[in-house]
Amino acid sequence: MTILSGLRITECAAFIAGPYATMSLAALGAEVIRIDPLEGGLDYHRWPVTDSGRSLYWAGLNKGKKSVSIDLRAPEGRELARAIITAPGEHAGLFITNFPATGWLDFEKLKARRHDLIMANILGNRDGSTALDYTVNCAVGFPSVTGAPGGETPTNHVLPAWDLLCGMTAATGLLAAERHRRIHGAGQLLKIALSDIALAVVGDLGFIAEVQRNGHERERHGNHIFGAFGHDFETKDQRRIMVAAVSLGQWKTLSKATGIAEAVKALEQSENLDMSREGDRFAARESLARLLTPWFAARTVAEAASSLDAEKACWGLYQSFSQLVQDDPRCSTASTLFANVDHPGIGTTLTPRSPIDFTACEPVPPGAGPILGQHTEEVLANVLQLSSGQIAALHDKGIVAGQTR
Amino acid sequence: MTILSGLRITECAAFIAGPYATMSLAALGAEVIRIDPLEGGLDYHRWPVTDSGRSLYWAGLNKGKKSVSIDLRAPEGRELARAIITAPGEHAGLFITNFPATGWLDFEKLKARRHDLIMANILGNRDGSTALDYTVNCAVGFPSVTGAPGGETPTNHVLPAWDLLCGMTAATGLLAAERHRRIHGAGQLLKIALSDIALAVVGDLGFIAEVQRNGHERERHGNHIFGAFGHDFETKDQRRIMVAAVSLGQWKTLSKATGIAEAVKALEQSENLDMSREGDRFAARESLARLLTPWFAARTVAEAASSLDAEKACWGLYQSFSQLVQDDPRCSTASTLFANVDHPGIGTTLTPRSPIDFTACEPVPPGAGPILGQHTEEVLANVLQLSSGQIAALHDKGIVAGQTR
Repeated sequence: MTILSGLRITECAAFIAGPYATMSLAALGAEVIRIDPLEGGLDYHRWPVTDSGRSLYWAGLNKGKKSVSIDLRAPEGRELARAIITAPGEHAGLFITNFPATGWLDFEKLKARRHDLIMANILGNRDGSTALDYTVNCAVGFPSVTGAPGGETPTNHVLPAWDLLCGMTAATGLLAAERHRRIHGAGQLLKIALSDIALAVVGDLGFIAEVQRNGHERERHGNHIFGAFGHDFETKDQRRIMVAAVSLGQWKTLSKATGIAEAVKALEQSENLDMSREGDRFAARESLARLLTPWFAARTVAEAASSLDAEKACWGLYQSFSQLVQDDPRCSTASTLFANVDHPGIGTTLTPRSPIDFTACEPVPPGAGPILGQHTEEVLANVLQLSSGQIAALHDKGIVAGQTR
Repeated sequence: MTILSGLRITECAAFIAGPYATMSLAALGAEVIRIDPLEGGLDYHRWPVTDSGRSLYWAGLNKGKKSVSIDLRAPEGRELARAIITAPGEHAGLFITNFPATGWLDFEKLKARRHDLIMANILGNRDGSTALDYTVNCAVGFPSVTGAPGGETPTNHVLPAWDLLCGMTAATGLLAAERHRRIHGAGQLLKIALSDIALAVVGDLGFIAEVQRNGHERERHGNHIFGAFGHDFETKDQRRIMVAAVSLGQWKTLSKATGIAEAVKALEQSENLDMSREGDRFAARESLARLLTPWFAARTVAEAASSLDAEKACWGLYQSFSQLVQDDPRCSTASTLFANVDHPGIGTTLTPRSPIDFTACEPVPPGAGPILGQHTEEVLANVLQLSSGQIAALHDKGIVAGQTR
């Protein structure tokens, strides 16, 4: 048995937050039915794509799901989608969408068909206006403090961090609502705005308080860790290593591994600082980095690693995506996180399962990215109990489509 | 009633992932008991701090929790902590830690005291070795593609994205395990490695497949959105705006709002591209950005906003943290996301509640960041049913401490 065996969630969504929420739940064993229009959702061809145009992004964010393809402009198609969303079953009746929850996806109308429906609606902004990760991130301050000190233009992140966090927040919300329904019998509508995810984090991490209580505007610190000691260094073999010391213990191991203790003592005296205090380590960050630079420059990655690991210092090697895939055993089938999976129309790729290990439940092997409409017939038959004749008629009328490309 | 009314979770953790997981569940109404050593956890003084040394970061990540302070080096203190972790109750018996799950926190030993305990153990790497957000991020490729094209050194992100996502994944895992326990009666140990969170996302977003199937190493694209059109532009009043067009609809609204349709048509002919295709928009990104640059340079933010909003184009304004707090109504009590909360020892700050709105449950008002040991007596009395005499004796022996500073 897997941890979410039996749970069924329907999805009408695109891009990252919604699909990532349900992909994560599918990776825990839930049955996830993604419903798309006949031509595919807005993200069906999102880059990166293969030479034949199949989206690697879509495959990754929709792996392990069932893909159902329906003409969502036709009233009969909408009726079918609503029937799947509100199909009976103790463990069914969960729905996630980032489309406007109006018209044919109005919550009250859906609720009339299933009184205990749980529906999560992901919005851009709380008022329903559009926002994407890129247009949220620029507004919440991080690009203005990313990159080398002195830089004048903002640096966008490449990781769609807000989308991912929004998706996982929605997954948490769905399970919280399902718990509530199990105990009290009631479903409900959840609303989650992408911009609120970012705004809440800015508050959670103390950035708002830093402005309001300290009157302090955070500056750019390049690759320095704020408020502690951590920086990157070039090695003899022209690679880069990040070291981090966010606790006194980590600082001691780093200091010991690199043999800078005496030099640090001299620095403490000349600068009147106490490096056992994280604030002082941050204040002296440039001086400390200068002490460490020659140590790394004189060593290859292998040599530095040997000394750092001997003291259990905390460090990491910078890797490109190719280097990660080619060199890092954590990113290989040597780790139970990964398996080689054949994705239809794409081929075999190293594919992750859920990063959560449930020690008393079976793991869910990583799924394949479905082809649009691959599970249309299966879902119509199993969830709606339509006969093969009824399904054939829907095909003939162009209301549904099976696997077409 | 709040969505997680009655659920009780105990925490022995520090920094971000564990504390963020439980803070997020406390914001949904769970009772969260954070147990710290007498001197506070490793993160109790984490920057940013007030002039008096109180951590704004700690307050943000632990708001709404109960703080219990125990001498965790003393056998009697450890016994108390284990008793709180394994206290009876249908909705209790959930525990999260990023400490090694060995010795006094060994799962099997804890399970012997409560057979259906659910314990989530957050690790650095899957093998138990140390990793932090900074040392994971460098390894998974993103710093090497962040920043302006041509840059040779990696750019670290400032947002601890992996920590946050790991925390929310742990929250999802805890609720999934609690669901399983409710249905089947069994608890279990969950293991979640920070580096696995990042590795899985690299797979989920198609970066691994891009290396393996396309043999392509992602490059730096500065503030361009990969595979679509989006970039930042300077306005007449020296502010910056990010525009994003990840769908054809968004491209049309942007094109219409800025009046570049004719110039785009000419570009399509001269370059033999079709801008209705997202891949072609990405290929022509520099040319398209050049077309838009004078439009923004000739307009103030207000003027540009007026035109962009009229067409419902997708855009955002770059803001520093101060500008966000001072200027953006989304980051104010005008939004129900925020309330002004008085944090003991810090003062009043704009504080977020959960970004999830559950329409059929009461919202949980944002909590205050506790002072270390603020709830020691309350928890010993309510959870362990200790008498005031017993609690006083523990105080006298130095095994527990109340609010001290």
